[in-house]
Amino acid sequence: MDGTLERVTRLVAERREAYLQRLVEYVRLRSVSATGEGVRGTGGYIRDVLAGGGFRARLHETAGHPAVVAHRAGTRDRPHLLIYGHYDVQPPGEDELWDSPPFAPEVRAGRLFGRGTADNKGQHLAHVIATELLVELLGELPAPVTFLLDGEEEVGSPHLDQLVRDLPDELAGTDLVIVSDGPTARDDRYDIVYGLRGILAFELTATGAARDLHSGHFGEIPPNPLWTLVHLLASMKDAAGNITIDGFQELVTPLPVRERQAIAALEPDPAELLASIGAPRLAPSPAASIGEREMARPTLTINGLHGGYGGPRNKTVLPHRAVAKCDIRLVDGQAADTVWELVQRHVRAHAPDVTATWHGAMHPSRTSMDEPFAAVVAGAVRAATGREPIHRPTMGGSLPMWVFTRTLGRPALLLPLGNVDEANHAPNENFALDRFYQGIVISAAVQLALAGS
Amino acid sequence: MDGTLERVTRLVAERREAYLQRLVEYVRLRSVSATGEGVRGTGGYIRDVLAGGGFRARLHETAGHPAVVAHRAGTRDRPHLLIYGHYDVQPPGEDELWDSPPFAPEVRAGRLFGRGTADNKGQHLAHVIATELLVELLGELPAPVTFLLDGEEEVGSPHLDQLVRDLPDELAGTDLVIVSDGPTARDDRYDIVYGLRGILAFELTATGAARDLHSGHFGEIPPNPLWTLVHLLASMKDAAGNITIDGFQELVTPLPVRERQAIAALEPDPAELLASIGAPRLAPSPAASIGEREMARPTLTINGLHGGYGGPRNKTVLPHRAVAKCDIRLVDGQAADTVWELVQRHVRAHAPDVTATWHGAMHPSRTSMDEPFAAVVAGAVRAATGREPIHRPTMGGSLPMWVFTRTLGRPALLLPLGNVDEANHAPNENFALDRFYQGIVISAAVQLALAGS
Repeated sequence: MDGTLERVTRLVAERREAYLQRLVEYVRLRSVSATGEGVRGTGGYIRDVLAGGGFRARLHETAGHPAVVAHRAGTRDRPHLLIYGHYDVQPPGEDELWDSPPFAPEVRAGRLFGRGTADNKGQHLAHVIATELLVELLGELPAPVTFLLDGEEEVGSPHLDQLVRDLPDELAGTDLVIVSDGPTARDDRYDIVYGLRGILAFELTATGAARDLHSGHFGEIPPNPLWTLVHLLASMKDAAGNITIDGFQELVTPLPVRERQAIAALEPDPAELLASIGAPRLAPSPAASIGEREMARPTLTINGLHGGYGGPRNKTVLPHRAVAKCDIRLVDGQAADTVWELVQRHVRAHAPDVTATWHGAMHPSRTSMDEPFAAVVAGAVRAATGREPIHRPTMGGSLPMWVFTRTLGRPALLLPLGNVDEANHAPNENFALDRFYQGIVISAAVQLALAGS
Repeated sequence: MDGTLERVTRLVAERREAYLQRLVEYVRLRSVSATGEGVRGTGGYIRDVLAGGGFRARLHETAGHPAVVAHRAGTRDRPHLLIYGHYDVQPPGEDELWDSPPFAPEVRAGRLFGRGTADNKGQHLAHVIATELLVELLGELPAPVTFLLDGEEEVGSPHLDQLVRDLPDELAGTDLVIVSDGPTARDDRYDIVYGLRGILAFELTATGAARDLHSGHFGEIPPNPLWTLVHLLASMKDAAGNITIDGFQELVTPLPVRERQAIAALEPDPAELLASIGAPRLAPSPAASIGEREMARPTLTINGLHGGYGGPRNKTVLPHRAVAKCDIRLVDGQAADTVWELVQRHVRAHAPDVTATWHGAMHPSRTSMDEPFAAVVAGAVRAATGREPIHRPTMGGSLPMWVFTRTLGRPALLLPLGNVDEANHAPNENFALDRFYQGIVISAAVQLALAGS
């Protein structure tokens, strides 16, 4: 296979416009899993793309949105690579916050802007195109590849664990799982990430009287659900940033020294980071560093809080209902179901009138930094890009990697292809086109290196 | 004038349908001062009604919405009664929460439903119709009456103080001010209220990063404006209901024993009150009683709080902006401008990134329970209804009575005509028609009694 990577690199350079159009076509398809809009149709589209590339591909039904499962054998039988991605996208949010419409992708300054460009359509499409190129050049894949494309990642992949349990024949032989999602931490290097935080998403609903009331005649007579939520939330995290849910901190496994050192070595420049997101200062936190906030500690984020009057000026009303949406990022030792028990118990103890509703969860995941396949992948990234990748013990975001490390019991690495400012989950999400094209080359290099290992 | 009140009572009974149609016509006119919708036109409408009743009536310009000022002399020169009301209304809120459209009033079960029926169009229209009846029966009013109808009461009457200062010739001779607004406390009795709490309405705006971010990659790195507001608000009132704004409690003048006893005598049945508003329990409070919560203590109400995601399910976003709208009800000793200084100082000390915006204020007001005209008014209510009114030292709501007691320096009484469940400021606001008709008779009785005093 000598020279194959060079030929891949040359073909990608020649076909940039055609590959861009394939990504544009894919991003145009709405697939908002939170509302269900367009999800099944988009799954069918990418299944057909894979079938067109010689994969045995199908929509696999779940209790929610379907997954795409696609397999193609290789010249060698091993190692068997499983590539996980997701074809669903986040809700676009308010249209007026986008400089171009979220589902009418537009190229500006070398980036493609649109919902799902980087998170995650562009990233798994790079892998798909890489398999096509390898088959074109070699007549066959060098080693077997299975794609598993989730339709529910942005709502917490509630059926992925069951899906992996349902596919023992197709997945049991997996040697390594690679997930390309999220941004790299720096635009001049790629990351190999060994662990991911888990997540627990939930909603707190507080009620008071049966209807909105006049704040002068009824203020402080029935419970105000906004005050109920303010005091409940303040009891869950204090003003210094300590999460104070009863029993929560006790679950955290202290970081191994090697990971702690790896995190310290990766510490970003605080002023630069704050400037990049337009924030005036760091949030209050007991963490010693930014790296610790992102990688070593759990977080409790209020994603949204709504209740009462929100129009112009003021309205002297006592609201009767309020809702807070929250997520907790979990670190090693914090199984999601155990933490959910703690949250429910805390809510019952501190605010018995509040209803806590579960919106999905993922366990944290960890793969050993000594995993041999990781060294192979690192060599491939070096071969494709000329730069040594950065080895990160863990990452702030949450992906359902635990399904692979815990349920399937295989090593799972995150190899993000996105640019650092991809703005995933936000308006003006984008994918730098150079990184899309380079992602194709990286995927081909990884497949070639694994087959040669 | 012997027998006049009986003739008024008979005529009102005969003309119920016609008076109802006058109220319907008035409520149909939108006059939402918070947005400005229809305000000036509605002011012109009620000015024309007063002019048609022989008043010298005009729209008086202010720096905001105009007020209606109307005067008619009486057979006697004194006492000169000033009747204050407001022709503006609260925003209707969401249409789907109303059983009939807020500006298409509908009669159901003896009540007229619509925004502004009781708060305040129906209540001052009862006084207007009373003057028409007295002129019809006596050829002239028994004593001079001035109407002052505010177009900005629901946004805090920001220009009323200046207006009263601007009208020395017309208002200097005022002997008594009567305001009919809000509900009575019980449907079988009327209230004479001597004092009112003040109000301070404001907004707290918190910002974090320049845009919404991914909660996994950026959680606890920039400040989350929702957490900023949660902790700021929790520092302003604790979970036990104590208002903890620095320096706030120290301003409160302890209640005179006579007023405290009057409040104790008026204590409602808690179970009955909670059932009437559909609330499961009382809010946490250091207050010993419901009466104390409503009449003796200041309150801090969050009227609305909005930030981040509010759609279906969940979205793992770290919001960049959040807004809380609040009102504080002030008691004797708490001048609104002094408290506003304390709020701003507290916000600066506890959350320097939060902007506090003033949305209007009223000082508290108090008239002596020994005021001689109050006894005359009480006698008139007794004559009109056959029941002794209830003397209340103060009331939970806020009206700009301080303009009359502090700026004009005259006694000012609140004589609410609304039913206890009028649902002012809420969906399905309504005015019980029997009370509308009885309000006309009460107003005529008060005018007759004052002229005879």
